[in-house]
Amino acid sequence: MIMQQITASRRHMIDLDALQAEEIEEILVTTDSMKEVLSREIKQVPALRGRTVVNMFFEESTRTRISFELAARALSANIVNFTARGSSVEKGESLIDTVRTLQALGADMVVIRHSQSGAPYLVAQHFHGSVINAGDGRHAHPSQALLDLFTIRERLGQLCDLKVVIVGDILHSRVARSDIWGLTRMGAQVTLCAPPTLLGPSHYWLATWPNIQISHHLDTALEGADVVMALRIQKERMQGGLLPSLREYSRHYGLTPERLARLGQHTLIMHPGPMNEGVEISPEAATAPNSVIEAQVTNGVAVRMALLYRLGG
Amino acid sequence: MIMQQITASRRHMIDLDALQAEEIEEILVTTDSMKEVLSREIKQVPALRGRTVVNMFFEESTRTRISFELAARALSANIVNFTARGSSVEKGESLIDTVRTLQALGADMVVIRHSQSGAPYLVAQHFHGSVINAGDGRHAHPSQALLDLFTIRERLGQLCDLKVVIVGDILHSRVARSDIWGLTRMGAQVTLCAPPTLLGPSHYWLATWPNIQISHHLDTALEGADVVMALRIQKERMQGGLLPSLREYSRHYGLTPERLARLGQHTLIMHPGPMNEGVEISPEAATAPNSVIEAQVTNGVAVRMALLYRLGG
Amino acid sequence: MIMQQITASRRHMIDLDALQAEEIEEILVTTDSMKEVLSREIKQVPALRGRTVVNMFFEESTRTRISFELAARALSANIVNFTARGSSVEKGESLIDTVRTLQALGADMVVIRHSQSGAPYLVAQHFHGSVINAGDGRHAHPSQALLDLFTIRERLGQLCDLKVVIVGDILHSRVARSDIWGLTRMGAQVTLCAPPTLLGPSHYWLATWPNIQISHHLDTALEGADVVMALRIQKERMQGGLLPSLREYSRHYGLTPERLARLGQHTLIMHPGPMNEGVEISPEAATAPNSVIEAQVTNGVAVRMALLYRLGG
Repeated sequence: MIMQQITASRRHMIDLDALQAEEIEEILVTTDSMKEVLSREIKQVPALRGRTVVNMFFEESTRTRISFELAARALSANIVNFTARGSSVEKGESLIDTVRTLQALGADMVVIRHSQSGAPYLVAQHFHGSVINAGDGRHAHPSQALLDLFTIRERLGQLCDLKVVIVGDILHSRVARSDIWGLTRMGAQVTLCAPPTLLGPSHYWLATWPNIQISHHLDTALEGADVVMALRIQKERMQGGLLPSLREYSRHYGLTPERLARLGQHTLIMHPGPMNEGVEISPEAATAPNSVIEAQVTNGVAVRMALLYRLGG
Repeated sequence: MIMQQITASRRHMIDLDALQAEEIEEILVTTDSMKEVLSREIKQVPALRGRTVVNMFFEESTRTRISFELAARALSANIVNFTARGSSVEKGESLIDTVRTLQALGADMVVIRHSQSGAPYLVAQHFHGSVINAGDGRHAHPSQALLDLFTIRERLGQLCDLKVVIVGDILHSRVARSDIWGLTRMGAQVTLCAPPTLLGPSHYWLATWPNIQISHHLDTALEGADVVMALRIQKERMQGGLLPSLREYSRHYGLTPERLARLGQHTLIMHPGPMNEGVEISPEAATAPNSVIEAQVTNGVAVRMALLYRLGG
Repeated sequence: MIMQQITASRRHMIDLDALQAEEIEEILVTTDSMKEVLSREIKQVPALRGRTVVNMFFEESTRTRISFELAARALSANIVNFTARGSSVEKGESLIDTVRTLQALGADMVVIRHSQSGAPYLVAQHFHGSVINAGDGRHAHPSQALLDLFTIRERLGQLCDLKVVIVGDILHSRVARSDIWGLTRMGAQVTLCAPPTLLGPSHYWLATWPNIQISHHLDTALEGADVVMALRIQKERMQGGLLPSLREYSRHYGLTPERLARLGQHTLIMHPGPMNEGVEISPEAATAPNSVIEAQVTNGVAVRMALLYRLGG
């Protein structure tokens, strides 16, 4: 109920689940404008001058934190980095108290990454400004999904009717969940491919997204694919007994040179990073002409500018 | 002797002990102007453009570090964050060498938080610019005291003749010491209230401030109070045997819902944060209409702007 | 071969080994201009507006990181701090992937400090912008050497034909290696002085720099010296058995008050910091009129501005 109110307010960006296709399209169009700004000699516009954005990262990150930082600066916002280490969080201060404090200090927007699914909703309940989810537990990572959508649309001209295969540790992936929301909303056909232990029961997925395909066999899944997204394999899954061995995983579910050769040259290769090269993706696939992995990172700055601009402008 | 010279120079802000009432009043008036700046659409003035402020935090902090950071940026100063972790301090560099280095690098002002009482005096002896104490050991925290004074004056229109009760771990609190200096200088009547183990012998306090009241009974102390300031209870005090139990403490010295009901609605409730809700203050008291705890945080930015402006302008 | 190509491109600043005297002179002249900028009321020029510099520090540092940060800001560049802690490096991301990510995010220049000798060459192979080495293992620290050259030239008017004694832990020092390259290139006469365990075999040094002098006796080495540079003694050397005791070291190789008295007043005393006062240098020597240790730190900002400007302008 509270989550629905938060979503309905359109003041925050916590997940893509409630966005209509037109709203996603608007964000992608705004991102086009932001990419134009980033192509200038001086990559800065005064859109958010005088606004304060706080980067609250309770989990490790390089690309996402710096991406939001550069996005905020390109819009002339004031950006403050806040990490759990070296803060009052170590004195036991609660998340809600921290957020109230940041608000009282003058924060207009909070970008939050947290290991607990749902933490951004809690923040949104106690913060008068806008909250952007930069990844919460296994739940959602909407800016990643939006940059994935933007990159596909930029390269292939559309999202509707494309066949997109997501392969890897789907069960534990917030990126997968947000991508499925965004892709299905835009009319793409999504196939999930993973070993059973990294996917969970099919009905879990089909209950929410009845039109997606599910496969345990990558070579079959890849037939006719326009896009393949490989997800990071976290090595601790093996110790947890969810995976036989990395070599085994790579043979069955990795983007190996052999699979790369069988893929059409038009099939986009994507990865949200950081990559385990040699596990879910081979160096050959990562650097192939149809790999757009670096473009994803580059587009991430523009997408985050679009989000900050829409919510804080 | 050296401490007196440092104090007399008025180049630094290390404690409130030597400030006259007129000087404190001037700072509060400057803070009024800074609050006006922060209420603008673009919260920035060029007052300290070209000046470099270094935030030297040797202890954890969220609100104070970010508060000084935002204050410096609102005045267009260059702000550099320096924390002990990840610095040459871990190689064993001394505080004096660090300060000399920062000076040689071009720092104009240093904001220092340190676990050792008196550390800012040592820094001031070796630094040609201005030093602002952001909390040293149990000694002083002048910007906190000034924001407390400002908040009371803002709400109640005056400081003189008000009855202010400070309750909690007064013995170990730098906030209490600076508040007592500031409040008594402005003519307020201060009552300290704490269990004997968190207060120490009365003559220790009365030797310095003969006019303050001392009490071990909160309900009596609160009679006729205009302001009550609850201090944070550090849980390690209990392990040190200074406290019977947190529940016991809360019953005798906490701002419980029952005490809140007995307090007049005009009595301001204050807390320097971070709070242990349910120990020294109940959630009901923290969010009561007469609580100004968030206003304290908000005013902290303006007070710190006033300090940076006066010392560096 | 790749290293030679990287060096020949002049797009990076990884070591001084391949620079001609004219190129070093050009950098020193540019540094003069930058010092003029830093002497202004508002210490900023728009030279690198719109450029993004990433400070990648994989080792602890105060002065070097802040020095580059202030240099970048004085040129109006966008500066992003990246440290190994709290980053995807902790998730096992490789250096190359990190650099590719930073590039895709829009980084134009990377300043890198790393414990592995040669790491900046690896970065330069995978980065399209410019790489500045801020210290790699025992290999090189070119900005430190350039600020040493600048400071000597500023005080003594020249570098050619000066006698410069470098004393201390030369074997493990990247500062010493870069200084030897720079000083010999500019025509100075270099004497290395250290106990055998902190120097290694003479032929190691003479194979690369046939004209340098080597000594194990400081008082002899100091005769006629124009400059003496003391290097930091790392206390862990003693535990490794390379040093008898710090007291012993200080007596034979330290800049003690007695040695200070015997030195001519025109002999410059230098140290790259952080100092172990009482070991390789006495407090008297560190603060003597002919000590230029603070000038070195101050000049470091201008030298780094010159490097950023030349590579990124």
